[in-house]
Amino acid sequence: MELWYTEKHTPSSGLTMKVSQTLYKQKSEYQDLTILQTEDFGKVMLLDGLIMLTEKDEFVYHEMISHIAMYTHPHPKKVLIIGGGDGGTLREVTKHKSVECATLVEIDEMVINASKQYFPKLAAGFSADNAKVLTEDGIRFVHTTKERFDVIIIDSTDPIGPAEGLFHKDFYRSCMEILTDEGILVAQSESPFIPIYAQVISNVQRDLGALFPITKLYLAAIPTYPSGLWSFSIASKKHDPENEFDIEQIDEANLELSYYNAEIHRACFALPNFVGKMLV
Amino acid sequence: MELWYTEKHTPSSGLTMKVSQTLYKQKSEYQDLTILQTEDFGKVMLLDGLIMLTEKDEFVYHEMISHIAMYTHPHPKKVLIIGGGDGGTLREVTKHKSVECATLVEIDEMVINASKQYFPKLAAGFSADNAKVLTEDGIRFVHTTKERFDVIIIDSTDPIGPAEGLFHKDFYRSCMEILTDEGILVAQSESPFIPIYAQVISNVQRDLGALFPITKLYLAAIPTYPSGLWSFSIASKKHDPENEFDIEQIDEANLELSYYNAEIHRACFALPNFVGKMLV
Repeated sequence: MELWYTEKHTPSSGLTMKVSQTLYKQKSEYQDLTILQTEDFGKVMLLDGLIMLTEKDEFVYHEMISHIAMYTHPHPKKVLIIGGGDGGTLREVTKHKSVECATLVEIDEMVINASKQYFPKLAAGFSADNAKVLTEDGIRFVHTTKERFDVIIIDSTDPIGPAEGLFHKDFYRSCMEILTDEGILVAQSESPFIPIYAQVISNVQRDLGALFPITKLYLAAIPTYPSGLWSFSIASKKHDPENEFDIEQIDEANLELSYYNAEIHRACFALPNFVGKMLV
Repeated sequence: MELWYTEKHTPSSGLTMKVSQTLYKQKSEYQDLTILQTEDFGKVMLLDGLIMLTEKDEFVYHEMISHIAMYTHPHPKKVLIIGGGDGGTLREVTKHKSVECATLVEIDEMVINASKQYFPKLAAGFSADNAKVLTEDGIRFVHTTKERFDVIIIDSTDPIGPAEGLFHKDFYRSCMEILTDEGILVAQSESPFIPIYAQVISNVQRDLGALFPITKLYLAAIPTYPSGLWSFSIASKKHDPENEFDIEQIDEANLELSYYNAEIHRACFALPNFVGKMLV
């Protein structure tokens, strides 16, 4: 018997993959979590039936959501990750020697525990000396914390279900208020090729643009995400992430990076014409 | 009843799409050609069961295989397209006012005729004043022609079946010999994310690198091609396509381009670390 899992990206198309085994299937108060062993992509984590990461290509998402902001800020000491319960973003952030404390705030403990059990390469981030893990609502944390952060990374699921509030302008404003004067915020903002997501990009860029002096969109190629092209929105109080990063300090070999490098940092801000039109 | 077509990118994964109707299905002496009407991607052309183009995202491939070379060469007058029987590349090339003659050499007349019938937006290239269409073997044409070309574009299918010879070093050498002193060659060279294709990239780059003083790889995001990330290999006798193109002459608005622009021209040469390693 052959078992195939198909993630529909729209009602009429999707990515299909052969599954060797279902390793894990649990429901928390927030969402369903499934872990599949696949032939092509290694282990795959799904939340509410949507692919969050695969062992094969998780490096693209986690490097690209982290290092653009981390290398733009001249000395990121305190970093906040909202979501990201698999640990991949925390792993990338804690590679930076400047980081004194990276705080991860994940609402769903089940995601953290499942990652520790099935994705040791991602969960490595949890055991970094400079990592702090909190299991609570990221929105409430941002509203109530007295701490200040140099970089905030919103590593959320899609803007439906538990992550919906992470795409609201009020939440972005609260994030801005707990960023330091040189602070930078980055958020995953879906795919420009999928019609229902294109509006998300426009909205996120509009909302961040109303709050921050510098707001930009950048892109990365992630094969197991819908369309294979993914966008990230970055907003900055002082430093322009496209032009002001310190190329000298980038040392991708030492950080063991498979996607990000100085040329990619520059290039990822180049937008195809059809994407550029989403920002105006 | 729902009809779905799945293109397997490997034996264990693929892209699946809902089909409204099979519009065309014919077999020539070279290959099978099918045209499907799909809900998400409009009309889709398949050769031997593999997606060659969809109405939705063909613009990426055709703009990116054409305009990098066309804008790098300072005055491309004579252009040769090998393959490309759908007409999309010819459409892009003939947009350039400098072009006196764009010669398309397609081995399979069935592809040209089907495109004229079902893809009028692509087949528009065939009726350009400066277009010449030959139905013959591209390899034989390159070996025997007395003409010389400023740009040669190898718009082939995968390196299995009728296009296999278009990936051989002997063929590249013949192309080099019919290029002018400022000549540039470009070829589609598969996806770096698909293991069986990664070797194609290495081989094409090695073979072109042994013949031309300048050889580079560039990338574009094409959702309906395997993995969504596609590579093109470009080889040049004189002008460096990454750094020597004339940014002043680029006028994407007048050429009605949806993907390519001057920033993309620079950025597409930035390679993720795992891709860069394929070239050494």
